This record gives sequence, structure tokens and C-alpha cells, in this order.
Amino acid sequence: MHGGDIYRNKVTLDYSVNTNPLGVCEEVKKALLSSMEEVEHYPDYYCEELKEALAEYHQLKPEQILCGNGASEIITAVCRYVQPQKVLLPVPGFSGYEKALKAVGAGVCYVLSQADSEFAATETIIKAIREQKPDMLFLTNPNNPTGQLLSKKSVDKIVAACDKAQTFLVVDECFIELTMYRDESLLYRGIPKNALVLRAFTKSYAIPGVRLGYAVVANKELRDGVEEQLSEWSVSIPAQKAGLVALQEEAYLERARLVIAQERERLRKELKELGMQVFPSSANYILIYDPAEDDSLYRFLLRWGILIRDCSDYYGLSQGYYRIAVKMPEENDQLLSRIKECFYARD
Amino acid sequence: MHGGDIYRNKVTLDYSVNTNPLGVCEEVKKALLSSMEEVEHYPDYYCEELKEALAEYHQLKPEQILCGNGASEIITAVCRYVQPQKVLLPVPGFSGYEKALKAVGAGVCYVLSQADSEFAATETIIKAIREQKPDMLFLTNPNNPTGQLLSKKSVDKIVAACDKAQTFLVVDECFIELTMYRDESLLYRGIPKNALVLRAFTKSYAIPGVRLGYAVVANKELRDGVEEQLSEWSVSIPAQKAGLVALQEEAYLERARLVIAQERERLRKELKELGMQVFPSSANYILIYDPAEDDSLYRFLLRWGILIRDCSDYYGLSQGYYRIAVKMPEENDQLLSRIKECFYARD
Repeated sequence: MHGGDIYRNKVTLDYSVNTNPLGVCEEVKKALLSSMEEVEHYPDYYCEELKEALAEYHQLKPEQILCGNGASEIITAVCRYVQPQKVLLPVPGFSGYEKALKAVGAGVCYVLSQADSEFAATETIIKAIREQKPDMLFLTNPNNPTGQLLSKKSVDKIVAACDKAQTFLVVDECFIELTMYRDESLLYRGIPKNALVLRAFTKSYAIPGVRLGYAVVANKELRDGVEEQLSEWSVSIPAQKAGLVALQEEAYLERARLVIAQERERLRKELKELGMQVFPSSANYILIYDPAEDDSLYRFLLRWGILIRDCSDYYGLSQGYYRIAVKMPEENDQLLSRIKECFYARD
Repeated sequence: MHGGDIYRNKVTLDYSVNTNPLGVCEEVKKALLSSMEEVEHYPDYYCEELKEALAEYHQLKPEQILCGNGASEIITAVCRYVQPQKVLLPVPGFSGYEKALKAVGAGVCYVLSQADSEFAATETIIKAIREQKPDMLFLTNPNNPTGQLLSKKSVDKIVAACDKAQTFLVVDECFIELTMYRDESLLYRGIPKNALVLRAFTKSYAIPGVRLGYAVVANKELRDGVEEQLSEWSVSIPAQKAGLVALQEEAYLERARLVIAQERERLRKELKELGMQVFPSSANYILIYDPAEDDSLYRFLLRWGILIRDCSDYYGLSQGYYRIAVKMPEENDQLLSRIKECFYARD
């Protein structure tokens, strides 16, 4: 169901998880270690300091921000707040929304985009909003697993359609900080009243084990409503401390963006040369399609301790689709050489 | 609303939070520190190793156990699973249930026990179950803030009444490991099918900043149902690692129980001698009543950096009620001498 299961696989190189390839930065590591001196206290119930720091970071108001135990807790909370009957999910897309929607008993309609149009989705999404008038829409930007980033214009059109249809819009920007297009975030263009923008420290700062996500909304009323659905003290002390320090690490993020952009295009080029179908991506991961149309590549790599994300369980994809993270040059060399071995053995 | 707010009060001695007075034990600290090397990975989605360790610890099956981001996440989840219309809450009692119940729109009926009968509650609870046939009942054992432990016989009678009325029973045993009566836990006497027993590492191991709770139910079906309401990867890597190590720390728990039992009775005796009303307690905290009937004691102590829990916001209590934790002898000496100062200044 998700990548990153190193607990039931023997993994030395995890290409199934899309976090910052630089790994945890030193300052965040230090903050985590020193936070261990404080764990005999309860965390701040209101995450006050962290909300203020996030507000300053994005030039917003603290009352627009809520923090959660990973973006996943906020996904759960916003589903409970909205209590939707009918939810539109663009697919292929992240499966975590469905778990939360199932828990509230919501009905789901899928909007399918196609591989042969490189998963272009804007027009089909807008059409579906107009026709189906859903209570809620999840828009992942950039998309996971395709890596496709919607243009500002596309997002604005979807926002307008949601506004007209009274559809609550969740824009999941968990990966946007690792793209070259962070300035295009909806955060900087006026957040609609009936919307929530989702963010996470997990991916940007490579700390999925810590659990820290946040969301931004237009006003305090909506913030309080969603926050009511969170559990008490849900953000641990290490998470709050790590978040505060992480927001200072601009140079680290900038380095990551450069590595990702370069290595992503190198990976794409080399994989294409092998005869793979490689989709365009603005993100720190790539969707590929193995013409063998079976899971031989997955199994081959796992034998060498390399875990990639088998995407055959994504709605709208099938056997042969994989998502691979973009990691550091030496790691990517290892991945590429193993993939080449697998391909050459086929001939 | 809760104790432990060291973020908006200047506190050097926190008597408002009821955790193990020994503080975090060395082995758990080490586990937390070394877990920081792993935070670039996702936590185990299923908490498999921890569930197995808990099952062994309690001599139950792993499929009966669910883990959460603190007991508070499990409280939220079980309320969502049961979706109760009418819930019985014995008061005075822990306010965290109400937050979770409000979030699911449940109606709450209070069962009030009285100070003049030392908050004896069993018979009134059973009567209320029979008459009101609620969908759900929260039973905190020992009670918070009174510290009163229900006997096995009392719990069994309440279990039988719930069974007859088809009331879902949550028995919150978050403090039982720090009493001398851990063997009387419902865990060791057959968990009813329509019940959930709540536990936390927070109190027993003094790690509220880490967030780790768990629950035990009779069977896998119920476990899966409640688990569906948790958010994904909700238990962080530090929490899972700390939990695994904590379960080995029997000697530490035993030391804590002895200190608590001794110091609790000393505190009770000395506070009584000052003219306070002091309620009996089996737990690591004491409910007291200041005959001044105002908040002068609270304000006096806070001026000296000592935070106690003002219980005037508890349903069924009023101005003058306080809950104080039982801490280490030297700390308790400090508390007592400040309370004495306050009382002598009154004369």
C-alpha cells in the first residue's frame, strides 16, 4: 500500500520513499538529540512557537496554521471536519486519502488521467467538478506518483471550479519544497476560504520517522474546526523542536533542489536509453514503465537490497509501473547499474 | 484544561503532571537517542515488533493490541469507531474524553460522585447504566483526579451492567502500572468483547513528550475497526523504540511504585496536619481541598515556580480543589515547605 516498508523487506537502498536525498541535516539532528532532554514534559498543546515560526516563514498569520502528527493526521482530521459524502480523487494518486475517507464512510469518485497523455489532468478534473459537484477534492501538487506539477493557471482554474461547485479543496503540496517551483505554491497566491493547503517536514527534511506535518487555511474559524479533529498533544516534543530548527535550513533545501533537478534528468535520460518509458517529473521521484510488463525488475532489485515502489496497486496504473526516488549521485549510479544488469540479462 | 502547561507558565517544579517521579530511565533515554539515527526512515506502519513485545508482556495475542500516538489518539479513534449518541462520563474525571466526544458530536451524560462520600462511584455508575442504557462509558481506573481505584468486584459489576445494556466500555488504566494493584488490571481477567482497555507509556515511563499509548481488546475484528480510525504511521520511530526498551524496565517500575506509595502517604499526612482535606488515593497523585476555597494557594506556589493542577474546571469540583503529583522526597519537601509558608502567612 505504501513505500518504505523496510521492516518486512531486507533493504540497503530505499528508492521507494521520496525524501530529501541529502538526508537529515546536521542542525535538525542536533535539535532532535537535544530535545530528548525534554521528553519528560508534555509537548506544547498548541504548538505555539512552531506555528509562529511557520507563519513567519510563509508570511502568513499563526492563526492560519495547524500542526499535526505528520500530514497523515491532518488528512484524517480534514476528512472528519468536512464529512464529505462524495469525494473526487484524481488518479493515479496517493492512496493515503482513501484510507482516511474510508474511515469517515465517504464515497469516492476517481478522475482518471492517462499515461498516453502523460497524465495531463486539469481539464478532466474541472469537467468532473462541474458535472459531479463533489463535496471535496484532493489535489496533489506535484502529483504522486507521476511527479507532474500543475501550472499556476491550472490550479487557479481548479480553484475557481471548486469555488463554484462548493467543493472543499485540499491541495497537498508535501513535495513542492523540493521542486524548483516552490514560489508557485498556493500559499503565496491567496488561499481560498474553502480550502486547505497541506505541507510536511517529512519529505523536505527527510524526517519521516519523526512525524511532523502542517496545514494552512484562510482563517482561524476553519483552522479551529479542523484542529478540533486532531488528538490532544499530537505533535511530539522532538517533532516541534526539529520543525523550528528546520525552517532555518534554507541552504540545505537549496542544495537538495539542485541535486534533485540534475540527478532526476540524468536518471531519466539513462533509463530512457535502456528502453524504459520515463514520464516527465518536476519532483524528487520519477514514474517509469518497464516494457517487460511484469515485476521482474522489482524482484531483481530487491535481491540486491534495493527497494523501489511497485505501482501496480495504484488505481489507473498496472504491472510494470514503478516509482523511483531521486537520490544522491553515487546511490543513483548503483541503482542504474543494477537496472542495467537486469535489462542486459533479459537480452 | 490540562496540567503540564510549562509553555505559558514559568515552572521549575511541575506538580500538575502525573508521571513517574523517577523521571526517564537510562535505558529508555539511550533508546531514544539512538533512535535518532533512524528517523530518515518511516516508522513501521504496523508497529509489529512493539505489538509483539506488548503481547508477551501482558501474555496476550499481538492481534489484540493497537498502538497510538499517545493514549489520546486512541481515545479519539475509539470514539470514532463507536460513534456513540449517548456517553456516560463519571465525574469528576479526565476531560480529554470530552474533547474527543465533542469532535464526533456525541451527547454526554455525567454521573456525579460526591466529595462527602470520598467520590465512591460504583453504585451510581451501575444505576446510570441500567437507567440510561448509554452507547459508551469511560471508566478511569484509578480515577483522575481523585486517585481512587475501583476494586475488582466493582469493575466486574460495571462490566456486567455494560454487557447487559450493550454499552461499549473503555477502561482507562493509564495510571495503574504506578499503583500497587497492577495485577488487578482488567487485562488479566478476560477483556469483555465490547470493551477496550487503554494504557500509556506516558505516565509509567515519564515520557509524555514522546507520545506512546496502546490499547487492548478482546479480538482482532475490534482491533482492526479501531485501528482503521488512526492516522497512518501515527507512532513515531522514537516512540516505537522507547516502548520496546521500556517494557524491560521492571526494576525501575518497582522502585517507582515504592517511592510513590511511601511519599503519597507522607504527603497526605502532612497536608492533613495543615488542615487540608486530603482524599484517599491509590495513584501517583492526590486530590486535596484547600479550606480557603480560593486560588490563593495556586497563585502562591506559582510565584515560586511550582505548578499544581487547579481542579476548579473539573465538572463536580470547585474552587479550592487541587491535584498534586507525588514526586521524589526532596521535591516533595520543597512543595510541603512552600505550602506551609502559604498557610502560615494566612494566620
